[in-house]
Amino acid sequence: MISVGLIGYGYWGPNLARNFDETDGVRLAAIADGRADRRDAAGRRHRGIVTCEDASSLIALEDLDAVVIATPLETHYPFAKAAIARGKHVLVEKPFVGSISHAEELAELAYKHDVRLMVDHTFVYNGAVRRIRSLIDSGDLGELLYLDSVRVNLGLLQQDSNVIWDLATHDLSIMDYLIDARPVAVSADGTAAAGFEHENVAYVTVHFDNGFLAHFHVNWLAPVKMRQMLLGGSQRMVVYDDTDPAEKVRVYDKGVDVDVNDRETRRRILVSYRTGDMHAPTFDRREALSLVAQEFAESIAQHRPPLTDAAAGTRVVALLDAAERSLRADGRRMAL
Amino acid sequence: MISVGLIGYGYWGPNLARNFDETDGVRLAAIADGRADRRDAAGRRHRGIVTCEDASSLIALEDLDAVVIATPLETHYPFAKAAIARGKHVLVEKPFVGSISHAEELAELAYKHDVRLMVDHTFVYNGAVRRIRSLIDSGDLGELLYLDSVRVNLGLLQQDSNVIWDLATHDLSIMDYLIDARPVAVSADGTAAAGFEHENVAYVTVHFDNGFLAHFHVNWLAPVKMRQMLLGGSQRMVVYDDTDPAEKVRVYDKGVDVDVNDRETRRRILVSYRTGDMHAPTFDRREALSLVAQEFAESIAQHRPPLTDAAAGTRVVALLDAAERSLRADGRRMAL
Amino acid sequence: MISVGLIGYGYWGPNLARNFDETDGVRLAAIADGRADRRDAAGRRHRGIVTCEDASSLIALEDLDAVVIATPLETHYPFAKAAIARGKHVLVEKPFVGSISHAEELAELAYKHDVRLMVDHTFVYNGAVRRIRSLIDSGDLGELLYLDSVRVNLGLLQQDSNVIWDLATHDLSIMDYLIDARPVAVSADGTAAAGFEHENVAYVTVHFDNGFLAHFHVNWLAPVKMRQMLLGGSQRMVVYDDTDPAEKVRVYDKGVDVDVNDRETRRRILVSYRTGDMHAPTFDRREALSLVAQEFAESIAQHRPPLTDAAAGTRVVALLDAAERSLRADGRRMAL
Amino acid sequence: MISVGLIGYGYWGPNLARNFDETDGVRLAAIADGRADRRDAAGRRHRGIVTCEDASSLIALEDLDAVVIATPLETHYPFAKAAIARGKHVLVEKPFVGSISHAEELAELAYKHDVRLMVDHTFVYNGAVRRIRSLIDSGDLGELLYLDSVRVNLGLLQQDSNVIWDLATHDLSIMDYLIDARPVAVSADGTAAAGFEHENVAYVTVHFDNGFLAHFHVNWLAPVKMRQMLLGGSQRMVVYDDTDPAEKVRVYDKGVDVDVNDRETRRRILVSYRTGDMHAPTFDRREALSLVAQEFAESIAQHRPPLTDAAAGTRVVALLDAAERSLRADGRRMAL
Repeated sequence: MISVGLIGYGYWGPNLARNFDETDGVRLAAIADGRADRRDAAGRRHRGIVTCEDASSLIALEDLDAVVIATPLETHYPFAKAAIARGKHVLVEKPFVGSISHAEELAELAYKHDVRLMVDHTFVYNGAVRRIRSLIDSGDLGELLYLDSVRVNLGLLQQDSNVIWDLATHDLSIMDYLIDARPVAVSADGTAAAGFEHENVAYVTVHFDNGFLAHFHVNWLAPVKMRQMLLGGSQRMVVYDDTDPAEKVRVYDKGVDVDVNDRETRRRILVSYRTGDMHAPTFDRREALSLVAQEFAESIAQHRPPLTDAAAGTRVVALLDAAERSLRADGRRMAL
Repeated sequence: MISVGLIGYGYWGPNLARNFDETDGVRLAAIADGRADRRDAAGRRHRGIVTCEDASSLIALEDLDAVVIATPLETHYPFAKAAIARGKHVLVEKPFVGSISHAEELAELAYKHDVRLMVDHTFVYNGAVRRIRSLIDSGDLGELLYLDSVRVNLGLLQQDSNVIWDLATHDLSIMDYLIDARPVAVSADGTAAAGFEHENVAYVTVHFDNGFLAHFHVNWLAPVKMRQMLLGGSQRMVVYDDTDPAEKVRVYDKGVDVDVNDRETRRRILVSYRTGDMHAPTFDRREALSLVAQEFAESIAQHRPPLTDAAAGTRVVALLDAAERSLRADGRRMAL
Repeated sequence: MISVGLIGYGYWGPNLARNFDETDGVRLAAIADGRADRRDAAGRRHRGIVTCEDASSLIALEDLDAVVIATPLETHYPFAKAAIARGKHVLVEKPFVGSISHAEELAELAYKHDVRLMVDHTFVYNGAVRRIRSLIDSGDLGELLYLDSVRVNLGLLQQDSNVIWDLATHDLSIMDYLIDARPVAVSADGTAAAGFEHENVAYVTVHFDNGFLAHFHVNWLAPVKMRQMLLGGSQRMVVYDDTDPAEKVRVYDKGVDVDVNDRETRRRILVSYRTGDMHAPTFDRREALSLVAQEFAESIAQHRPPLTDAAAGTRVVALLDAAERSLRADGRRMAL
Repeated sequence: MISVGLIGYGYWGPNLARNFDETDGVRLAAIADGRADRRDAAGRRHRGIVTCEDASSLIALEDLDAVVIATPLETHYPFAKAAIARGKHVLVEKPFVGSISHAEELAELAYKHDVRLMVDHTFVYNGAVRRIRSLIDSGDLGELLYLDSVRVNLGLLQQDSNVIWDLATHDLSIMDYLIDARPVAVSADGTAAAGFEHENVAYVTVHFDNGFLAHFHVNWLAPVKMRQMLLGGSQRMVVYDDTDPAEKVRVYDKGVDVDVNDRETRRRILVSYRTGDMHAPTFDRREALSLVAQEFAESIAQHRPPLTDAAAGTRVVALLDAAERSLRADGRRMAL
């Protein structure tokens, strides 16, 4: 039985608490939050739990095997460092940390202390996303050509960071999971409209070594909620619409055939399009976060790296960092 | 009665011919096309018309007042130049011409010969787009914040240019019509996926002097057809979905209020969101091209510049030219 | 403070318990359910509550002011009767009871004992439905012409009754709330497809004294979930789509004008259609069941009939009863 | 080469003329219409055609092999009779004729004169409908359970009949084509709302000998256009949405399994639902009317009955006739 403590019982914390509570082989033992009302709520919902006022008290608890960190970004590094230093396994909310050097330092520290360090890239555990990965693996999509992602809506509370760190993290982690090619450069553009301090409308482009192109639109000022991803393949193309209650994943038997021989004899490319059936496969509808909790527990029990380990977290931080640098440099393309 | 000759009876030419045929005060007198089968088709559909094998024969016809050019881009400049030189009024298909210098030369020539020179930015005559312009003019949207446009689908025949010159021209001409602020820089990224010679997936970003941001996604390799534009305002926001058969224009009574006073006392911005009704106004459903033909005829009759004159055409060419330069320079932002 | 006991902690009971728990002026004091696991769950979620194995024990509790009945239909009558006889106020799940005579008997008994008797017609408390009622009241829709309702999906557990008693009850209660004219006759058709014992696909038609027509399609065997109601008015028409996450209520400025004068001079009616804007108003998004609980509590505190009183429940039972009789008589129209 | 004459050049006639013009083995030779402007329009669009002022002149033309009748319903019978009597093959617009006796008389007459008599049930030639038929034939849907059809919108010009004869004819002809079981009874309800002379909102129910149930909602007063058909099968279910530009036919791998053995031992049926993939197959996108023209020509050339022959037309008239009788008898179920 793995004993887990949770730091942060704000927006996402209660979801983590509930899911760890229902995970086999795990005991949710402690919750830390600076606000008394949240500690009360945690105590009511999770009987017999230890509640702490600050993170360090929780980390200091002797009988905890693992710590889950669901606090603002700037605290991820110190809390994770302290927990690892005490030999605890650590699950950190996305985004992992605010800088590549912090990410690499934590990864090294976890290696040294032989503890599991996992990042909560929740969407990697989403049934729809995993279904798309299996479509890629089966070769059904053919050669992957591009990924286009839109994640927009109206709404945000007080924010200390821009929309890229908040929303694009999700999509970059999906991209990191789905695309095997190596990203080589990132550019980003955006605007802090309506008097905001940080960018609230932004676009991120990721270039890959094999010519694959990924593009992300993230926006806190959109009148409608959209969560849509296009994944173009030479054989088939996928539309993943997370707002569709019924058919989130649609596979279009559409593709492009280029007559290469013809190209040599004539200047113009002859292209023919195939249009066929559309297919909406079923997929695992379980809550992604329950699989996150399960993967964390199993990686500890089996003494193996979790699927979304510190390396995955670091890769996503590197993309965010490059996007941020590009934003500050008039959208110039930044090498990774 | 204005006598009009049409050069090019391929994809778009028949639509122009039909609309000029039905325009008051206009007589469609001649059609030129290099292909015999197209000349035959033109002759069957438009009785008593003169058909020519080449553009120069048509331009040479004495009794023509005006010439409509619906041929590939590279011929726009020579055909328009020849027609203007003979004192004909000219309507050119979009995009106007392939370079800013050609655009400026033609504008000057038309001024010298005192003929009308118009560019067929069809969407500027679309009822939905004009309805959005009237919403902007009424002040209902508040301060304009950003424009995001998606124009994607699967399909193209042989192409001599990239997807930006083909598809983004539409959206840039809409932007030119709707947004009064001055664009100052353009960047573009894209990929020539699946062995194409030219970019078939591309993104264009346009920066304005007042901070307004416009972004365009154009794509020939998308499995679904999307024609969607978001226009964010501080008071209201518009979604223009050209594929929706019923409600193409939706106005959301949603916006953002930033408490500026609070900003001075506290580090964090306090933002409140308003969410209200949605409203889908009716608009003029007439075919846009019929209004193009009418505007061309009226600008000639009234001896005044048409709405989409050479200046508008030149502005859009300047945007396309900057996007093209950015594409060739790793997406670097190009000043206009 | 009104002390409430709940009978039945199966599918709907936990929702009732949660909402009464959060209602001002109410104390959820006891829950009865025959199954031990459900009593345990109830005890865990509602601390300090009394749990009972059977309804009669709960009804016998001295300090209860009111009883909420969320058990299978056949038990509504005996449980409500027993509770009223002990002077408790009663809220009964929909449908009220299985026969008109039972409905009338309970209404009379409640009158005699001077207790409130309310039926949980939840949709009457739904913000979208109330918004439509206010549109009717404002006269915006003009003369009401027809109502067409579709409530279909795949799914059902073991069932003791047909799809009309299960699903159409919702829509008939909405109709009862919205339409002031008097229904005079009902017909129904259906089929017990796929070897079911009771009808799982059915259609109900309700005729009104003023010519208004209402029609209901209810279906447990449909591959897609649909919850759609059309309400046609001479001035405007409403589409209420409960599955639309964003715009559930749409008001179309469309109508019909009939030239009556013309009718006298010519055989044919000259009809002109108006087509105008569409408008999606906002509405109260609070959970309907919380307003049910509040209305029950307030009707008790204020000693007044609740909005969905026994009379409303009886009217809906009369419609269901007539539909059932029609089903058994080859769809013959049954007078109410 | 079959020589065809067309009677009626109003709403549908031009479509028939265009399609017969483009059909191999057919020559459109003559068009009759009482209105001079329509004859002019016909003459302009179809060069060298003979135009007639009345039907009898056209029918009298010696060199015509076949006559197409696209005039108001009440003229179908006399025109068809006269044409058949002169040995012409006849294609009649839907609905075939206004009474069963007329339908049977024409069928007999055509048999006697050995000419083809076809009814233009256009939707039977629609690629989506034929795709659904092939799904049925393949057994993929399992046992067919029910058909539910909605065909509603706002709009109608002057009308001499009710919405059932106008709109339901389409759906009844689709049902006649898809469903092999025998319909045995029909009931119908409706209202002539808003001062119309004939029913403009109506519902038709068709009962089959094997328990299959079909239901039709037709409505001229709906604010939105809907063209949707559900076809429930025990193995799979189809949604056919004719307004969807991309995926008109969707096949849901959803069904119902009833445990029959269980039924014998227990009163309650145990039902389990299967939910699987959704599949949107491609289908023939050619214009249905071109296939109607082709089938008519081929049935003449091959001296064989057309797919939608007089018998099919008569079956649909019998359904319409029973629906009409039911409308006049308070919705009573009428045997066929």
